This record gives sequence, structure tokens and C-alpha cells, in this order.
Amino acid sequence: MLIVPEREIADLMTRDAAFDAVEKVFAAMASGDAYNFPVVREAIGHEDALCGFMGGFDRAGLTLGLKAGGYWPHNLEKRQIINHQSTVFLFDPDTGKAKAMVGGNLLTALRTAAASSVSIRHLARADAKVIGMVGAGHQATFQLRAALEQRDFEKVIGWNYHPEMLPNIEKVATEAGLPFEAVGLDGMAEADVIVSITSAFAPSLMAAHVAPGTHLACMGTDTKGKQEIEAALLVKATVFTDEVAQSISIGEAQHAIAQGLIAEADITQIGAVINGTHPGRSSDDEITIFDGTGVGLQDLAVAAAVVDLAVEKGIAIDVDF
Amino acid sequence: MLIVPEREIADLMTRDAAFDAVEKVFAAMASGDAYNFPVVREAIGHEDALCGFMGGFDRAGLTLGLKAGGYWPHNLEKRQIINHQSTVFLFDPDTGKAKAMVGGNLLTALRTAAASSVSIRHLARADAKVIGMVGAGHQATFQLRAALEQRDFEKVIGWNYHPEMLPNIEKVATEAGLPFEAVGLDGMAEADVIVSITSAFAPSLMAAHVAPGTHLACMGTDTKGKQEIEAALLVKATVFTDEVAQSISIGEAQHAIAQGLIAEADITQIGAVINGTHPGRSSDDEITIFDGTGVGLQDLAVAAAVVDLAVEKGIAIDVDF
Repeated sequence: MLIVPEREIADLMTRDAAFDAVEKVFAAMASGDAYNFPVVREAIGHEDALCGFMGGFDRAGLTLGLKAGGYWPHNLEKRQIINHQSTVFLFDPDTGKAKAMVGGNLLTALRTAAASSVSIRHLARADAKVIGMVGAGHQATFQLRAALEQRDFEKVIGWNYHPEMLPNIEKVATEAGLPFEAVGLDGMAEADVIVSITSAFAPSLMAAHVAPGTHLACMGTDTKGKQEIEAALLVKATVFTDEVAQSISIGEAQHAIAQGLIAEADITQIGAVINGTHPGRSSDDEITIFDGTGVGLQDLAVAAAVVDLAVEKGIAIDVDF
Repeated sequence: MLIVPEREIADLMTRDAAFDAVEKVFAAMASGDAYNFPVVREAIGHEDALCGFMGGFDRAGLTLGLKAGGYWPHNLEKRQIINHQSTVFLFDPDTGKAKAMVGGNLLTALRTAAASSVSIRHLARADAKVIGMVGAGHQATFQLRAALEQRDFEKVIGWNYHPEMLPNIEKVATEAGLPFEAVGLDGMAEADVIVSITSAFAPSLMAAHVAPGTHLACMGTDTKGKQEIEAALLVKATVFTDEVAQSISIGEAQHAIAQGLIAEADITQIGAVINGTHPGRSSDDEITIFDGTGVGLQDLAVAAAVVDLAVEKGIAIDVDF
């Protein structure tokens, strides 16, 4: 039984390794080799916590397990620890025995960033120059850092409901040697790629704010009721997602689906593009949307990758369980 | 983060501790202090394994977690390890941080035995003398050992579809200094308490086989389609269970419910009897049935108990996670 504590993840896991793991498992999902189990999500009535389990099995990578944890909103104020707490558990699919336990906090941030990054690699125009960020919280910095590796971006523009948070992403742009510009939402029309990462329950980005040819990765909507972009925008776009069942129920597409603007059949798994069974972007003026809802298999994939890295470097704690 | 490996459980956990833990959590379920999360159960299409997660939260005992694992039917023949493999994970309900990992194989056997034992303590006649076992597999030995502690039994009778397995339970009877007798199913009419623990998909024990005043603990049915006793028997009896939602859907009561013979409202949580909000047995000729379906909270309760014992004895492995 191998254990990789949270404190080791930052030194072990690279954005490249997270990208590869997430791209591979998205591909496996689309080819039917990997699937997510039903998600358990419970408001436990204690500390206002929202707690759950996201499990899955990847037959191609032989990865079986779950991420357990959730959101404890008073952690930071009461105990100076982060509010999102999660742990990934892996099992040997041949025997059912527990195989590894891995801190899941940083991994969750990395796998979410890797997902939009995978969508940019496969769906954004090759000549994309301007990246726009809608949202500037802690997770936005992960999304931006990963996104910048996918194209030769020349400029970062950003909007946030609380503008005082924009320096978070400006810092990432500066580190990458790129100019940063705070814009209004209509300024997003300049972007070739937009990543939205907010926790809003009403749309901020409207169809009029998005230029033809843009690739848009919507990463914030993972719950019934949340919404980042106008539903009409999905009608104008070709829509991709990690998992269609989540996209239409808890993802960004839930609203366009509920309003009858698009149908489930209009949404394509990103893995189909990775596998080459869907052509992806078909023209330079097509708007593409990736509805990133977040699936357990992403967590298992990055956790399995980090266990391998920890074993290689002799850092994994081996407990005779 | 505390770890209690499977190999330590046998020396740490007592039947008494398992009984107390299960009785307490059944009580907490009935008083609304504890609840089980939706069960995830998946045929993963690999090694014919059935894999899943059973989680829950006990606000009274502050126990939060899940049991993960399942049934790998080829483990024994291929690898000489047992087919049922499970691990219990506990989390700090105040923060969401992983708190303990405990081998769940023996604990599952003990908590299942404790459940029928709790039902016998609270529902069997005080003067019960003969205990009947329907089923004589490995788990039957756990059920019988625990049951024998609840009344001054003078004799064990047993039936099994494969009679050559009866020595399993005869051995337990002999160790307890009690005579054992193999009987036909109609011989079960002699029993004051009957524990059924088979994995049958058709009823073996019929209404005619059960005498007035008997307490019957049906412990084998935990899946749609399984059945140990004739549905008509539930009509003649007062029916108790661990969790009503499971009893009517995957428990022994599923068939009587589906046939319209009894209603959901006819089934009482055993915790109500423990708490004194239901009187339990009302006469010496009443037939009582406990439909033991098995819930995640039982696993969490015994795991939390074993962690406490392991800490007391200095056996828990403490990993800086």
C-alpha cells in the first residue's frame, strides 16, 4: 500500500504529466475503455460541508478508485487549512485490494487546469494569440498557467466580478513574459481562447462578447444552477465536454438543454476529438466550447501518475497494509 | 492519519465491541442522527468484479467515511486471497481530512454477525432455547458465534442446501458446548430463533417451517432478486430492518412489497426498538423478522471502534499524511 502525502505532490507532479494523464483518460472514456461511477454528493449537515465520492474505472490504464472529500467552507477561517479537502484512493482492479492513497487537493487543481488545456490543444485555432480569463480566483491561476503552454499566446486579458482579484492572473501573465490587460466583458471579443472559471449562478459572458473562431473552455459549472455563459452562445457553437451526462445535468450545457436550445446529441465527448473519431474544429470562424464538468477519472488518472512518479523518486511511503 | 491493517483486526476487535458499535449506530439511524449515503455498486467488467462504495455520516458518533471494495470472484482460485475485499476510510467530519484507513474484510463479517445479534437481543423471546441456522458457509459461523451470546441456547439445529457444509456450524456449536442437529427445513419449526445466511435467489424457508413466537434474522438478501424466506412469512410477522429503503428494494422484504403483501409502513427500523420508541415484540407467539440488508454505517462504526482499540494498544500505524 503506497501513500503519497499532499505535501509531496507539488514537487512530484508536473503540468505535463497532468496533461498527459487527463488527455489519455478522456480518450479512454470516448473509446468506452473508461467510465465514471455515479457521483455521491451529500450535504452532511455538519460544518456546512458538502462531501462526496467520485469513482471510476479505466480498463485501458487499469486504474480503479475514487476521490473522497469535498468542501468544508469554514476550514480557512476556523483552522487555517484550505476549504477543499480531498483524498484519492486507488485499488488493484485484479484483486480489489487497496493499492494507494494520495493527497487530492493540489491534484484537483492540476487536473482541472489540465482539462481546459487539453481542450485548447485540440480545439483552439493554431494561430490563437490572445487568451481571455473570466474569473481570477486561486483556480484561475492554475487554468491560465496550463493554458499558456498550448499556443504561442502574446497577450492575456482578464475580467473578474471582483476586479481587485485580477492581480492573481496578471502575476501569471507577467511570469510568462506576457502583457496583461483588464477588460470589460465586451473586451473579451479580442480573445481567441477564453477560459471561464467562476462559481457564478448567472451568466456573465454573453454571445455578443465572443468573436467568431474563439475556443471557450467553461470550467466553473459543476452543479445544478451554476452558469457562466449565455445559453444562446451554445447554439452558435460546437459543444464538447468531458462527460455528456454531466454536461447536460450539472454542466454549462444544462441551461441550453433545459431551454430546448440544443439537444444531448449536439454535445461531443472531447475524447472523440483526441481519438480522431470526431474532426473537432472545422473552420477558423467556428466557435468551439468545452464544457468541463470534472469527472472522477481525471482524479484517478493524475493520482496514478503521481504514484508512479513517487515510486520512481523513492518518495512513496510503503505501508504493509 | 492512522492505519490499521487487516492482519491486526482479529486480535483487536471483539464481538462485544462490534455489538456495541452496531447497536449504537442502529439507534442513531432511527433517531435521525446518522444516515447512509446512496450506495454505489458497479460491475466493472474486469475479473467479474462487483465493486462499490458505501458511505455515511453519524452525527452522534462523529463518524464520516466509506467502505470501498467488493467481490472479486476469482481471487481465491487465482491468487489464494479471499474474494471479498474491502477497506474502510474515515474522515474528520470537522475538516474533511482523511483520518484513518482500516482493513475491512474481517470487520464486514463481524458487523454482519453483530446485526443479527442485536436483533436477537431486542426481539427474540427471553426464554429462547433452540437456535436454527439456515446456511452453513463461512459467514454462518460468525452469525452463530455472535447469536449464541444473546440467549441461554441449549441446542443448535442447522440446514444447508449443501449438507456437506454443516460441519462448519456444528463446530461452532461444539465449541460452545451445545449439541448440534442437522434438520430438514420443516425441522426448523423447533427453533425459537432462526438466522438465515445464504445467497439464494429463491426462498428455502416457508411460512409452514416457522413456529409462532420465533425470531428470524434474514441476513443473506442484499441484492435485487435474492430471497431466503417465503414472502407470505412477512405477512404473518412483525418486520424490522436496519434501513427501510434497502429492505423494500434489495432486502428480504422486496418480494412481499412487490407482491403488495405488506407496505413500507409495516417495516420498522430496529433502532426504534433500541431507542424504546417502538415496543418490539409484543407477545410470546408473535413472529418477528429482522431484515438485515447491511449498511455502510455499520462498517464505519466497527472501523471507528477498532481504530480506538488500535490507538489504545499502540498498534495503529501513524502516517504523516
